[in-house]
Amino acid sequence: MPETSALLTDLYQLTMLQAYFDQGMNDTAVFEFFVRDLPPARGFLVAAGLEQVLEYLETLRLTDAELTWLERCGRFSTGFLASLADLRFSGDVAAMPEGSVFFPNEPILRVVAPLREAQLVETRIINLLQFQSLIAAKAARVRLAAPQHLLVDFGLRRAHGAEAGLLSARASYLAGFDGTATVLAGMRWDIPLYGTMAHSFIQAETDELTAFEHFARSHPQVNTLLIDTYDTEAAALSIVPLARKLAADGIHIGAVRLDSGDLGTHARRVREILDAGGLGSIEIFASGGLDEYSIAELVASGAPINGFGVGTRMNTSADQPYLECVYKLQEYGGIARRKRSEGKATWPGRKQVWRRYDADGRMARDTLTLEQDAQPGEALLKPVMSAGRRLAPSPPLAAVRAFAAEELRRLPEALRALTPETAYPVSVAPALAALARTVDAQTR
Amino acid sequence: MPETSALLTDLYQLTMLQAYFDQGMNDTAVFEFFVRDLPPARGFLVAAGLEQVLEYLETLRLTDAELTWLERCGRFSTGFLASLADLRFSGDVAAMPEGSVFFPNEPILRVVAPLREAQLVETRIINLLQFQSLIAAKAARVRLAAPQHLLVDFGLRRAHGAEAGLLSARASYLAGFDGTATVLAGMRWDIPLYGTMAHSFIQAETDELTAFEHFARSHPQVNTLLIDTYDTEAAALSIVPLARKLAADGIHIGAVRLDSGDLGTHARRVREILDAGGLGSIEIFASGGLDEYSIAELVASGAPINGFGVGTRMNTSADQPYLECVYKLQEYGGIARRKRSEGKATWPGRKQVWRRYDADGRMARDTLTLEQDAQPGEALLKPVMSAGRRLAPSPPLAAVRAFAAEELRRLPEALRALTPETAYPVSVAPALAALARTVDAQTR
Repeated sequence: MPETSALLTDLYQLTMLQAYFDQGMNDTAVFEFFVRDLPPARGFLVAAGLEQVLEYLETLRLTDAELTWLERCGRFSTGFLASLADLRFSGDVAAMPEGSVFFPNEPILRVVAPLREAQLVETRIINLLQFQSLIAAKAARVRLAAPQHLLVDFGLRRAHGAEAGLLSARASYLAGFDGTATVLAGMRWDIPLYGTMAHSFIQAETDELTAFEHFARSHPQVNTLLIDTYDTEAAALSIVPLARKLAADGIHIGAVRLDSGDLGTHARRVREILDAGGLGSIEIFASGGLDEYSIAELVASGAPINGFGVGTRMNTSADQPYLECVYKLQEYGGIARRKRSEGKATWPGRKQVWRRYDADGRMARDTLTLEQDAQPGEALLKPVMSAGRRLAPSPPLAAVRAFAAEELRRLPEALRALTPETAYPVSVAPALAALARTVDAQTR
Repeated sequence: MPETSALLTDLYQLTMLQAYFDQGMNDTAVFEFFVRDLPPARGFLVAAGLEQVLEYLETLRLTDAELTWLERCGRFSTGFLASLADLRFSGDVAAMPEGSVFFPNEPILRVVAPLREAQLVETRIINLLQFQSLIAAKAARVRLAAPQHLLVDFGLRRAHGAEAGLLSARASYLAGFDGTATVLAGMRWDIPLYGTMAHSFIQAETDELTAFEHFARSHPQVNTLLIDTYDTEAAALSIVPLARKLAADGIHIGAVRLDSGDLGTHARRVREILDAGGLGSIEIFASGGLDEYSIAELVASGAPINGFGVGTRMNTSADQPYLECVYKLQEYGGIARRKRSEGKATWPGRKQVWRRYDADGRMARDTLTLEQDAQPGEALLKPVMSAGRRLAPSPPLAAVRAFAAEELRRLPEALRALTPETAYPVSVAPALAALARTVDAQTR
């Protein structure tokens, strides 16, 4: 975990590889991953998933069981299957670092490798980069909506399977969340873990107050009590004497959680009850169907909420659960290539993205051009793998998270809005436009 | 794979388990999984994911590495951690068979187990059942929109990670798709595999026609040529002489694929070109951003398309990427329990769903009631696991698929529409309503 099977791919990759094999085609291919269009209401995206792509490429190989199974399929020649047994990823990779802000048509990953290797890995590369980048962008929006609040990923249960749960915990932390409830993500990536209690805990006990007390005694240092199982305000009232009783034993109630009804209204009433009871130090944590829009409203309304648990709508990027993204052949055997399908044309050749900043250090404008066509500013794609090996150990996730936060600080003010009205300027350099015309003239 | 770690859970399950342990609470608990509401534009759901839930429960255990890590967390007592080392799932499970049509508030899975076991597994059970049921329902809609067409899952690349790709291949096949492009899903579950070629294959060759010929010669039995890389109709025209040339060598072109532009218009023009060239046997396959709505339109328009590749919008259930589903404590220590949170109240007790059919064998009405309160019709929840062991081997996926098809045939006509206007009747039996009142009177 993550899943590393080389058969985590589309059948057509293998049938194309068979044809490449038959033709002896295995020259150097250049593929780039990019997003075609921003989804509605997104002003930017955040690159994430590179770490899992590099892990996948470094360990790419077919097992004996997989090769035996492919042989039994009867679709492939013996010679081709023998070549698959030796297949490893031996190419070079350049990429934007994880946490980078990026825009449509900008490659965030470039693979330069023998054709068969570069082709086979298409499916899993898209699968890994699109999902984490999608969630990182969504989580960054939640962070922008609540810059000062505690934000915790609560979404494993309704994520699309195990890997989605784990990778969305990673992507949301990377993009600015404080932690996750997903234990395995904490173990795997050292992401801070947060948790409260479920309604079942309250229901299993004879009464709510007993449940609160038992939980606090079991977790005297860190605890959050869920108070909406029966009646939210009644539960808050019951906590006042309980807190005094527990304090006598040195136990402090850390927070209460609201999970239903009008969260802003309940938060105000609960805050009043707790404050009137001298419990100003108990924090209020809210959850339940939240996303960047509802959180922005709660924050704007001044609701006395200290933190948010954000699940389903963030982990599934519910308003936009996919990106129009592709991994396209841009050069083969030293010759630039271009697809011209209706509405889906691509820019040919090995490309680089250059970014300029304004005097305040904010992103000002990007230029998309050919790799060799140096432009003012910073080159965003950097070499990360050579001949199938990483050039350097990956930065720790905390460092990636710090870099992503810096990227969000460098966003133009207009792009920080939840529904940005202006698009960030990305221009195509003359050299690239000229190459596209040349390629068009040469193919059909 | 699928991921089986017992730490694929929320932190609060473990903190609750610590408190249960401290209180010596481990009586029999009854939890049920159900969906609260149908998403807009859905008339029914299709149960899927039970097989993976049973696999997970049968193999549930914490590894030494996980226990060591939990110890280092410092959140849990030594005695509790020792109890976790021995934790296995020893409970009973009843469920609707995979492929069953179900409706809101109807449990599709009931777990009866010692409290700690039943609690710990909540997160992963929801994670597995919601995703596959979501995708099975979506795929069933696509099948209803195109009852006679070849339908192939193309969605691994934009599924939310590896497990989502694999499980959506499984769920869509179960619900009526003919197969998938995901190789590992074919290997794992014997799902028929389908594939065509990518644009990169065309682009890598010196010209499109050479690419077509090379591919067909490598795959003389089964091949589909992608014809939209540069100009769809020009490509179709070029295939006419190529097909004659290949036929002389005993090679038949099976199909062409359209992937951009107005698919209906291109299909008509391509059909005319192929027919005029005497190539009536070459089929037309279409893909690109399809879902049940666009497919229904293409089918209604009479577009000469033989099959559809359906990816992103099906695998992410793009219009509705999650279900309002829960796994709730309904009974503990022999006493029925009920949550009463605003807008989120649940029906208490161990329940059963009874379904009646009309004279034509169509589903007529369901009744939700207590397990012991027999009603007319068929009881939908059936025992599948006892004391942690399956009662019978799981049916092969092909049998599940046949059952799902039978379920779709039994749908009331009104629910077969893509935007059904009437809801299926599900009533609550008097015995269950009475229990809810009793429970309410007893708690607070």
